[in-house]
Order: sequence, then C-alpha cells, then structure tokens
Amino acid sequence: MECFFNPRNVAIVGATPTPGKGGYNIVYNIKKGFTGGIFPVNPNYGEIMGMVCYPSVDDIPEPIDLVIVFVPAAIVPEVIAACGRKGVEGVIVQSAGFAETGENGSRLQEQVMSLAKQHGIRIWGPNCVGLVDIGRRQVFSFIAPGILKPQVIAGGVSMIVQSGMLSGGFLMDMMMADRMGFAKVCSIGNKMDVNECDLLAYLLNDPQTRVVGCYLENLVDGRRLIELCRRTEKPVVILKGGQSEHGARAAQSHTASMAADRAVVRGILARAGVIEARDFKQMADICNTLALIPAPSNGEEGRVAVLTYSGGAGIVSTDLMEGRHMRLAELSSDTIAKIQPVFPDWMPVGNPVDFWPAVEKSGPLKTYTTCLQAVLEDPGVDAVLLHMFLGGRMNLDVSSLARAAEKAGKPLFCWAIGHDEVRRELTDVFREHGVPVFRELERTAECMDALFAKQKPARPRIQAGEAAEKSVIPEDLSQRFPDAGGVMDEYEARQILRRLNMPVVEESLARSPEKAVEAADQLGYPVVLKGIAPERIHKTEAGLVRLDLRTAAEVCFAAHSLTDAMGERGRLLVQRQVSGRLELMAGLIRDKQFGPCVMIGLGGVLAEIMGDVAFSPAPLTGADALALIDRLQSQQLLNGFRGEPAADRSALAHILVCLGDLGNCFEALQEIDLNPLIISDGQPVVADAAVILKTGTS
Amino acid sequence: MECFFNPRNVAIVGATPTPGKGGYNIVYNIKKGFTGGIFPVNPNYGEIMGMVCYPSVDDIPEPIDLVIVFVPAAIVPEVIAACGRKGVEGVIVQSAGFAETGENGSRLQEQVMSLAKQHGIRIWGPNCVGLVDIGRRQVFSFIAPGILKPQVIAGGVSMIVQSGMLSGGFLMDMMMADRMGFAKVCSIGNKMDVNECDLLAYLLNDPQTRVVGCYLENLVDGRRLIELCRRTEKPVVILKGGQSEHGARAAQSHTASMAADRAVVRGILARAGVIEARDFKQMADICNTLALIPAPSNGEEGRVAVLTYSGGAGIVSTDLMEGRHMRLAELSSDTIAKIQPVFPDWMPVGNPVDFWPAVEKSGPLKTYTTCLQAVLEDPGVDAVLLHMFLGGRMNLDVSSLARAAEKAGKPLFCWAIGHDEVRRELTDVFREHGVPVFRELERTAECMDALFAKQKPARPRIQAGEAAEKSVIPEDLSQRFPDAGGVMDEYEARQILRRLNMPVVEESLARSPEKAVEAADQLGYPVVLKGIAPERIHKTEAGLVRLDLRTAAEVCFAAHSLTDAMGERGRLLVQRQVSGRLELMAGLIRDKQFGPCVMIGLGGVLAEIMGDVAFSPAPLTGADALALIDRLQSQQLLNGFRGEPAADRSALAHILVCLGDLGNCFEALQEIDLNPLIISDGQPVVADAAVILKTGTS
Repeated sequence: MECFFNPRNVAIVGATPTPGKGGYNIVYNIKKGFTGGIFPVNPNYGEIMGMVCYPSVDDIPEPIDLVIVFVPAAIVPEVIAACGRKGVEGVIVQSAGFAETGENGSRLQEQVMSLAKQHGIRIWGPNCVGLVDIGRRQVFSFIAPGILKPQVIAGGVSMIVQSGMLSGGFLMDMMMADRMGFAKVCSIGNKMDVNECDLLAYLLNDPQTRVVGCYLENLVDGRRLIELCRRTEKPVVILKGGQSEHGARAAQSHTASMAADRAVVRGILARAGVIEARDFKQMADICNTLALIPAPSNGEEGRVAVLTYSGGAGIVSTDLMEGRHMRLAELSSDTIAKIQPVFPDWMPVGNPVDFWPAVEKSGPLKTYTTCLQAVLEDPGVDAVLLHMFLGGRMNLDVSSLARAAEKAGKPLFCWAIGHDEVRRELTDVFREHGVPVFRELERTAECMDALFAKQKPARPRIQAGEAAEKSVIPEDLSQRFPDAGGVMDEYEARQILRRLNMPVVEESLARSPEKAVEAADQLGYPVVLKGIAPERIHKTEAGLVRLDLRTAAEVCFAAHSLTDAMGERGRLLVQRQVSGRLELMAGLIRDKQFGPCVMIGLGGVLAEIMGDVAFSPAPLTGADALALIDRLQSQQLLNGFRGEPAADRSALAHILVCLGDLGNCFEALQEIDLNPLIISDGQPVVADAAVILKTGTS
Repeated sequence: MECFFNPRNVAIVGATPTPGKGGYNIVYNIKKGFTGGIFPVNPNYGEIMGMVCYPSVDDIPEPIDLVIVFVPAAIVPEVIAACGRKGVEGVIVQSAGFAETGENGSRLQEQVMSLAKQHGIRIWGPNCVGLVDIGRRQVFSFIAPGILKPQVIAGGVSMIVQSGMLSGGFLMDMMMADRMGFAKVCSIGNKMDVNECDLLAYLLNDPQTRVVGCYLENLVDGRRLIELCRRTEKPVVILKGGQSEHGARAAQSHTASMAADRAVVRGILARAGVIEARDFKQMADICNTLALIPAPSNGEEGRVAVLTYSGGAGIVSTDLMEGRHMRLAELSSDTIAKIQPVFPDWMPVGNPVDFWPAVEKSGPLKTYTTCLQAVLEDPGVDAVLLHMFLGGRMNLDVSSLARAAEKAGKPLFCWAIGHDEVRRELTDVFREHGVPVFRELERTAECMDALFAKQKPARPRIQAGEAAEKSVIPEDLSQRFPDAGGVMDEYEARQILRRLNMPVVEESLARSPEKAVEAADQLGYPVVLKGIAPERIHKTEAGLVRLDLRTAAEVCFAAHSLTDAMGERGRLLVQRQVSGRLELMAGLIRDKQFGPCVMIGLGGVLAEIMGDVAFSPAPLTGADALALIDRLQSQQLLNGFRGEPAADRSALAHILVCLGDLGNCFEALQEIDLNPLIISDGQPVVADAAVILKTGTS
C-alpha cells in the first residue's frame, strides 16, 4: 500500500488547466503539498500550472508509482493498460460510471479489474474521492481546494469512508466548527480491489493514526475485518450504513452492495472490540476523544469527578452515567479537606463538586485550580469532567488546568457552553494537551463511555498463532448428511448432536401406539409425544405435539390421534418431558459477510420481542463461548432466579463450541437451530433441533 | 401571574451602582428594555444610573406591583414585610441562602413564606435567576448583560428551569451557535411558592409561547402538571434531572427535592403527551423544531422524502428513521417523471433522491428547485429532509426553497454541514420560514420524530368537564380493611377483588388435608395448594406452594406436608390451576408526586430484565386503561402468538379501572399487587394478589 501513501512520482491522468474542474483540483491539491514528482497527463495540453503535461502515461520520462485517474469511465481501461506498460504500482480511479450505475458499468469495472490483475496493479476506487492526508498536507483527490482552506488541523484520527461527502464537506465541518484534527482520510468508492481491510491494515500500522473511523455500506471480508480489529490496540469506530430494511435497499442502489443482517453485524463487531457509531458526527466525536486520550491503564474503572458551576448540569451529568461504564467517584476525606477551604462554610463539598458558591467566595482561578488539583490527586478518581461557562473572553489560564491533568495522567473531559468563538479558542488550547471539549453533555458521556468500555475485560483476544481448541467433530460425521440436502430428519439430526456429547433430550422412535407406550414406560413420565411427518419443521403449528402425558393411557390415546392425523407416512417420537422455567435458543448460521456464525439467544414467547441474541464467528474457543453468553442482555437469568439454580455455563459453552466446530468443518451445513434449549435444574437440554443442509451438496 | 410578566412599576431591592454586581445588573437589564417605572432601593445610595434610589420599599412614592430582591438572605423577611405594607403583588427573590443551604436556610424560607401568605404576596424563587423575556427585551434578572448582548433572537420557545445556568449561559450558547430564538425563560429556583405549574399555566396561554421546555429536578404537583399538559395543544418538553440513583442524591443536595421513581415519572409524563428530553441542548433542539413547525394536520403520517447530495448520508438518514414515527415516502410515478429529466439517464430516481449526478448535469439551482417542488407536490410525501453542503458562500436562493415548502404546507427539515458561518446565515434565513437546520442527522431524526409522534393517536385527551366513568366501588368496602393496616390476609384480599367482579382464580379455604381434597374435587384438577401463614407474602420462596396437583392422592400428600411445615397457624388454600403462556402483572401504587397510580407490566421470569411496565395516574376511564395497555413494549403478545388466542383487552382494562378506582376511593390502600395475572385462553385471571394498607389507618 506504500505506493498510495508514499509515492515518489505521481501522474494525474485527466489533468486540466480549467479551474473548478476535478482534473484541475487534483493537480492543484497535489502541487500544494506533495514534494515528489508531479506529471499531469492530457493529450490536449502541453503545460498545466507551469508543469509539462504529457499526452499519455507512456510518454512520462520517469518511473511512476502512483497514477490518479479522472477521465470518463469508458477510457479507464486503456489508461490501466498504459499503466501496466509503464510498471505503475497503484492507481486511484476517481472517475464514476462503474458498478454503481448498473450493468454496463459493472462490466466495465470487471474489465478494469482483469487488466489490473494482469499487470499486477492495485486499484483504489473507482467512484471515489481518493486520499486526503491532512497530517502531511498531501491531497490525492479532486475535492475543491476551498474545502480544506479555512482550517487544516492535523490529528490522530484517520477515516476509511465509502462515501465522498465524508472526505470533503464533513472534514471541513469538523475542523471548522469542532476544531478536530485528522490524519488520513481515505474514500474507497466501489472497492473494486483495495478495500477497507487493506486500508485498515495499513492505518493500524501508521504512526500518525491513533484511531480509525470507518463509514461502510458493506463489508467485503468480514472475517479479516474482525481479525484486524481484534489484534490491534488502536480503537476502531465503525458506522455501518444500510442497517435498516430501507437503508439496505438504499445501500444496494448506491454501491451495489448487500448489507448483512443488523443483529449479526452489531454483535460480531462489538465482539471484535469495534465501537459502533450511529451517525457521522457522533463517530467523529468518539474518534476524536479516543485519539486525544491514550487508553487508560488497566486499573482504571471510570470513577469520575464532576466539577461544575451548575447544580443542574451536575445532576444531568450524573444521570447520563447510568448504564455506561462509569460512575461518580467517591471523593476521599483528604480531597474534601483540600477543597472545603475555597467553599463557603454552609456548603458541604460532594461529587459533583458544585463550585459556584466557591467561585463567588474565592474567585474562579483559585477555585478551578484547587478543585481540579484535589480531585486529580485522589486515587479514587479515574477521570475528571470539567464544566465551563465561557463568557465574552477567557479569563483563566486554561492550559495550566490541562497540564495539571496531563501531569496526573488522568483523562480530563470538558463540557463548555457560552460564547461560540471562545469555545473554539478553548478547544484549540485543550487539544494540545489531550483534552476533548464538548457542547452536549450526552455526547460527553458517550465518548467517556467509549474510553472506559475499552478497558473492560469483555474482549478476549485471540493471540497470534493461537488456535481454537482441538475440534471434537468426528470426521466421518458428514456421511450421515443425506445427499439431497434440505431439512434433515429431526431424529437423525439429534442423533448427530448426541454423538458430539451435546445434551439432547432422551427420546425413542416408535412405530405404533403400543411401542410408544413401551418407550414412555422406559423413559419415565411425563413424556412428550410428537408426530414426525417429513418436511414439517414447525410441529407445534401443525398440531403434531402432545405435551405432558402422565400415564400410559394418555400416551396411548395421544399416539392414536397423531397416527390418525399423519396417516401412513408419519412416525411417533417419544421424549422425556424437559421442564424448566428458562428457555434459550442456540444455533448456527452461515452469514454472507462473516461465514459460519454461532448464535445464542433468549427463547420462549418473548424471543421475538426482546430480540436478545448474540452472534460470534465460528470456530469458538471455550472462552469465546463464555464471553458470547455474557453478551446476552438477559444473561443474569443464568445466575438463578426465584429459587431456580444457576445454569451450568460451561455446559452451555460446550454446546456453542460444538455448533461452531460443526459449521467450520462442514460446508454443507447451512443452518442449525436448537430451540428450545431448556435450562432444567441448571443443565441445558436441547429439547428440539433442526438441521438444514445446503441443497445439492453433501 | 401578570404582576411578574407585565408589571407597571418595578422596584429593585439591593440595587447598587457598582458594575459587575448582581444588584447592578438587575437595574441595568431592566433599564435597557422595560418601559414601566423603575425604582431602585438601597439605603446606601441616593441615585443609581440617573434614577432616584429609595432607602426602602416603603419610601417609594408610587404603587409597585413587582419587587425584585437581591439582598442577603437574612434581610429578605423584612423586605417582604415592607412589600406587604406597600401592597406589592409579586416578589422575585433572587438571593440564595435558603433551603438549598440546609436547616437554617429552610427555616428562613418558611419564615418568608409565612410572611408572604399573610400579605397575599406571590413569591418567585428564592435562589433563582428570575425572568428573561427575550421577545419583549424585558430582563428581570441579575445575569450579566454581556450574556445576551452578542445575539438576541426572539422565537416561540419558552423555558421553565430549575437551574440558573439554563437561563444565562445556555441561552447565549443556543442563540449564538444555533441561532435559536426564545420567548420567555423563567428560572424558578427553590419554588417556595410560584412553581412550574403556575408558570406552565401562564405560558400555555401566552401568545408569544409556542412550545415550553422545562428542566425540573422535582415535581411539586405532578397531578396538576399532567393535567396542564394533557389539556394543551402546545408541546411541552421536559428534562427531568435526578432520575438515576446518584442523580437523585445530587438533586437532593441541590434543591432539597426528592426525585420520584424513574419508571413512574417517564411513563406518566409520556401518557400526558409530554416529550421527555435527556440533555439540555437536545431539549432545546426539540423545542426549536416544534416552535418553528406548526403541528401537521391529522392525516399526516411521517412519510419523508430525503433529498441528498450524498448517498451515504441518504442511507444513514434512512437507517435513523427505523423505530421512529416516520418512514421513507414512496414517490409517485408522477413525481419521478418530474424529477428524472434533471438526472442523467443512467441514474434512476428513488427515495432518497441522491441528486449529486443531477447537480453535475443540470446545476444546483435547477436540481434543488425541481426535486423539492416535485416531492412537495407528491400527496404521498408528508415532510422533506433536505441535505445541504455549504461551501464558502451561499450560491442558492435558499429562501425560495423554504417558501416553496411553506406554500405546500409541508414541514421542511434541513441537515447542513460545511462552512460554519454559512450555516448560521442559512439558519437565519430558514428560521424566518419555519425550517429548522441541524448539524447532526440523528438529532434531525429525533426532532422529526417528536413532530410526528405528536400526531399519533396514543394520547387520549380528557376533555374539560369529562369525568372518569362512574366508579364501581361499593362504599362499604373499606369495612373489610383491618384497622391495623399492613399486609392483608391474601384470601380476604382476593375476596375484595371478587366483589368488584375482577377475574380472580377460583379457590377455597380448607382447614385440613381432608377438606383440601374435597375442595379440589369440587374445583376440578389440576389444582394448586398453598400454605397461608400470616405475613408471608412470598410463598414461593418460603416453599409453601405446590403446583400442578392432578389427583386426590397428590393433594392429600401435599396438604399434609404443608401442614407440617406451617404448624398450627397456617391454613390451606386450594386453587384451580390457571395455565397460560403469558404472565402479566398489574397493581396500584401511591406515588409521592402523582398520587395513586395504576401499573400494568409484563410478568414472569423476564419481568425484572425487561422492565416493561407502564403507569397512569388514577382514576382511569376504560379508554385510559386501553391506552395504558397499548404502552407496553410487549403488548403485541396480547394479539396472540404461536397458536395462543388474543387476550381480552377489555377484560384487562376492567381490572385496571378497578385498581384505579380503589386507589382513588380509599386513602388507606397503600399498594395492590396482582402478580401473576395470567392470560388463560385469552382471559386474564388474577392468580395471586397482595393488598397492603397504610399502617395505623383504616
């Protein structure tokens, strides 16, 4: 990827001397900041901005590593061919008119791709805005130069965006209004070749980049993405567009991409330590915070001291901590003793430190300095949230406040309202010392949460070289898959699960009502009786299930009525009745973006309403499986409730590991559905299972 | 309240000629905008700002309707006494040092209150910032004049705030950075006399006020508040501080107020049509939107056309509609035919209308005008969300766009990023035409949601003069309440519920195991057997419940074992076993701020995790009860699921109406708990009930 970020010589195909055109902007932007060789290419001009303009790439007298292309789509293939002859390493195709426009464009895109492969060229784009390297003032993009003119602030946030807007207007917006700093912004367009994973891998190794924010409409290689995110210490924030049903439709027409199911994407990204964003500016705010503040050391818990001039703002700040990875710090008596003297006697010091009366008594300088210093020195305080009101001018040495926090090694967050321009001045000063400044309390809380959530042990890392535990799957198992694929016979399916030592309900097939009674006598009452008719997955809806049969007579009666209902083709299944007040479900799905994924969720009648499910890519280690269980909202139910014993989490984890191994070993397995998975006396029991195979494979 | 908002003559006690002091600011602010008589009072000066200064209120030669007090707390009582002699109608006490400072302050506050009552004076405050009337430039407050200087924008938003910050710095912030306009901002401090309800009642009748935003830490009179909100057409947005456990503690120390339970407050405010906010600026943004856009007429459903220059922003806008009261409009073929000509042929028009290719082909003016006009004319479009990128200057006649929307009578929302100052210009132009401008998409979606949520029929209004249906409660019922109070005998409690025709499980008391078997034979198997030992509410935990007894032998055995466990004091209760897969709970509580409230919630093992409960103040009409049921997140379960029949909502409503009537009629009833309330074959059955009486009352 170095050819894109650090080329020696750059050619611009489609350069033009006409201001306002994209081909002009590219040359202008490059000339402004790039220190290597610049070679405009356009057969219609001999010179552009004082530089020689060449008729084609072939005519350039020096070697070229990077070519930027901004010509009509139809001409792009011949440009790529020329690049191939020239030995170019990378091409950024900024022209539009490819897959995003329909079938013809898709064919053109394929043609470009095959030429590039042939010549060993990496292609970035097409239909993209290219690369804006703010830190090095190196802009390989057609964006209007005016966009970056008003303010360019270098910082630690890099972005990978599947949207042109984010690499132009949005940058301007965030730098101007929020004084936020960026490193590299990469607009990836149609991702024909270079994709988010390639760029993420580069940026995670880039010393200028401390945090990566991504706006993505589809995930080209979900597995690689999560592996990259898992292995890095740098925060990755992702806004995934197209998650709603309608949004996904819009995404399809926009970049010809399919969006994965929301729950799967969310769960899996979260598991990989990715912070998920909901909106553009919110993503930028989180990135900015994490770029300014180094990850706190492991001991820190998010105990926050709030220094405020407004009781109301202190209360709302406190309310906003609830449900997040932080809480009000308990100030030590030492700290209180240090602060009390600046307060009037009648005002007891607590947290939030509501220092308005102190400012009136002791003046702002003494109050701010004393309170901040005291809470920073308190070992029970991990971070400080400072509220500031900004009048017509700054009358405090704010950099000394920021330095105090820097020295103490504790994150300082600032919420500031009042004079808009003064807030920008304050933000500039504070940014130099790693202090983010916010205008909304809720956003402040969200960003603090992002910082402290990273510290929680919820993210087991797969170390390099580490593999999942040895699979328990016997290799000959696939012999039991019927060649035709489709829904497996349920009894057969459960037999497979039993071979993996999964706790499947005890059961017996019976050919007649008499045999059913015999089987029930052997299993012990109460029993469940099911009619198995081929291809009917939903037995309950079909009326083929009889629950809670307590005597031989009840079994006999029910068996006759099922036999009548099914006719000749059905068989009778007698199961021990599993009782338990907690129903879960578990399963395996094959996701388009992440491959085989294991699911666990809350079952029973509330399953659909709660939507409490968690996904993880297979295979899973035992630790992965336990962490997955922890991610259920309702996981506290597993600790026992109303006299129920706690559920055996390791037995549950075993089931999940098996599911993952099955999905990982056998491509033919399309879906497994264990539902319900009943917790009975603390032990999980698979009461029903469906196994679905790819049709036409075995 | 007219004396506060429209006084003829105002006296300022504590006036001073020293700039920077509060007593100076008050006089300065009043002189700047108030057109009535101004009378500074301070025994130390003869003249302030060219006006005669009087030694005391008694010495003023003219009648005074409003006095503003800014002197040390200890002197306030004598000022009030003087005001009483003078016949003053209202006093705004801006001094601090009262209940918020502890016991001595509370005593002082009571003293002031009793003096005021004696003289028939209304007191606003103490410990408040007073009144800032932006619309009329009438500032009765000690806030620094500089705060309002940079920009004063009159608008339709009035605020009632239990916090000084919001009436000073925050106003400045919202007017400067967001160009938002305000009407009247009232800082109410300790609410000794004038409270949020008094001010809300005034503002809801104030022609300048279109929306009221409130920041409140406690609710003085919850009943009156919700009645005011229910009866008005003006939107009321409330940020309730102190909702978290910690926040409530902070609230207590801040304004000596108790916060009510979060679920109760939330549910009840929502039922009254209040929009609940989470943060200050978010509250202001919602208020601003609702003040700019008149409530759409009833037919409108929130079908939104999105016009964007960025596919990514269109996708995220669409994602953000999910779960809100709006959705993407389906554009008619007419509309598409109108728009298509400005687009290049290869680009099909959909919604979001991604008009970047059109801008390149047809120029911005033609594209914006054509697209906007077309979607405004589409009868399937209720509102338009317009995305704008603001470069270095505005090169569009944006007011003509806004006028087009005004003319069509459809709300237009604008999300604009780019050049910060240009956004402010745009906001000023758009504000004049009722178009709110946002910087974040998610906030845009939230504010659109607030507008369209108001249109949903979820809010049955109690019309003036309308009463709840006639209570079904027999008056002699209270004779059955034991004098001692406390937990009622459960059998007795259920007998009371039966008298109200509530569907309580069939049951029988039995003195011996033999009688229990007889009772079971009569009720029909299976039965539940319970041991009733006095004062044990939680029978399950105590092991005194035997479920699912199917034969006389099982009953006999269980009865003996319960009798053994309880000893002589217990009795046996035989109940028909109610079976059903859906468990609810319902109840009555007596809330500090809202009085008797009826609750319905999801029951069973998930109750605690889901927290799906809804509250309404008693009494309830049948329609109220149905609306309350609708508010359960899980209410769709009542429509039937997996073969279960739909629940009888009117039977459920009857139970809730009875609970409300009971709470309303009998002060002695502290709490009623119907749990579980099982839906069995569609009919709700009270399977267990606890009634708790106030101790020492009957």
